[in-house]
Parts: sequence; structure tokens; C-alpha cells
Amino acid sequence: MDRKNAYGFGVEVSAPYEEAVERTKGALKSEGFGVLSEIDVKATMKQKLDVDFEKYVILGACNPQLAHRALTEEHELGLLLPCNVVVHEHGDHSVVSAADPEVMLGVVDNPALAAIASDAKERLTRALESLR
Amino acid sequence: MDRKNAYGFGVEVSAPYEEAVERTKGALKSEGFGVLSEIDVKATMKQKLDVDFEKYVILGACNPQLAHRALTEEHELGLLLPCNVVVHEHGDHSVVSAADPEVMLGVVDNPALAAIASDAKERLTRALESLR
Repeated sequence: MDRKNAYGFGVEVSAPYEEAVERTKGALKSEGFGVLSEIDVKATMKQKLDVDFEKYVILGACNPQLAHRALTEEHELGLLLPCNVVVHEHGDHSVVSAADPEVMLGVVDNPALAAIASDAKERLTRALESLR
Repeated sequence: MDRKNAYGFGVEVSAPYEEAVERTKGALKSEGFGVLSEIDVKATMKQKLDVDFEKYVILGACNPQLAHRALTEEHELGLLLPCNVVVHEHGDHSVVSAADPEVMLGVVDNPALAAIASDAKERLTRALESLR
């Protein structure tokens, strides 16, 4: 990973934003994640506040099997789903980041989720690494 | 609040699911939150896994002013946005829950976010309390 913070990890991708978004969706699909939501932050900021913001999208990535197992263990877990993947422009390249499932599910006091979080993290890590 | 756990809080609403979803959207709007994403968990589980799940929706609630302030302070914060609000059926009534913004933003090591999280939490609390 090129980037890491307290709640996520990411890679820098040598591709313009639009291409990076498409490649990210493909990489997520290869690891069993569908994109269930897509929030265009730039368009939303322009529309709601009339401010200019860089190209920035929040993708809601969901692996249905993992989500079903997690929701069966912890019914309110929808509060922490899906797993966010952000793509934004950064100069002449793009940055793709994922929220760390182990951090997200770490706020839940339920040990049964540990294996699910670990599986999700491995898949997201592979997806992002494949973009470099 | 009727319900509270380590990462969210919620109320029980004496209304069937469909009505509770509409009332929740209205209550969020009154507190300045738009709904930017809507994930129908029941439909997704049926479509992707052919399993039956209760009526359950994940709403992505966003207050544009608060989101803009938060993203200006912490650029990768899209990984934790929008704020999830879940509505699900529960017997003859419904449960409406919100992820606790102070818990969510607590995973970020950035004191500048504390006031924003507190503001968001107050608004979500008022929105949910208004549904009882």
C-alpha cells in the first residue's frame, strides 16, 4: 500500500480519475464486491453548496456472502455497511482508498465478526494492489 | 433513545416499515440531511444470494455543510461518509437506527472533527426522537 491512516489504506494509480473509477469497480468485482452505492462528492457539493470540489467518488462496496454472514451475527451492522472505497483525483494521477474493515468492525463488540473483517480486508487489499 | 449499542442508537417506531422509511427521510430532511444512497438489503440478498431477509434499508444520510467542513479538515474522510441510518421491520413495528458520528469520527485521529461529529450527532438524535 502507498497510503495508510488510522481507518483505511490506499494506492496511487497512474491513471486519470474516470479510468481509475472504472478500473476500481472491475478490481472490486474480481474480489466478489458489487458496488451498491455511488456518491459523486464533487457533483453533490456543487449542487447543494455551489462550491467547487475535486473529482471524488464514494463507492459502497459489498460482498453479499460476507455481508449476509455479518448481518446474521450482528443485526444492526447495516450501520457500518457497505465498505467504502473512495477514488479521487490527485494531480495527474488518482488515489484509491478503502476503509479498513478491521477498524470498522472493531468498533463492534462482537468477536464473531473478526474472521469476516479479516476476509474482507484481504479481498480489498488484493483489489487495490491490483490497480498499481 | 430506545436502543443503544457501541456504535449507534435507535428508536422503535409504531409504524409499518414502508411508512417508517418515509417518515425517517422526512425527519432527516428537517435536520438538513439529504439521503444520498439507499441500499435495499432485502432485495439485494434475494437477488445476489437467493436468501430471504427481513425488510431492511441502509440510507446514506449527508448534511452537505457538515460533510464539506469534515472533508476540508480530513481529505480521506469519505471513507466514513455518509452517515448510515438503518430502518428495518421488527414484528409489527419498525426500528430506526443511526451510526453514532462520534464513534465513527472517533476512529480518526483529528481533533478538528470533534465539533462536527457532535453537531451531526445532535441532529441525528433529534431526527430519530421525532419519530417516536
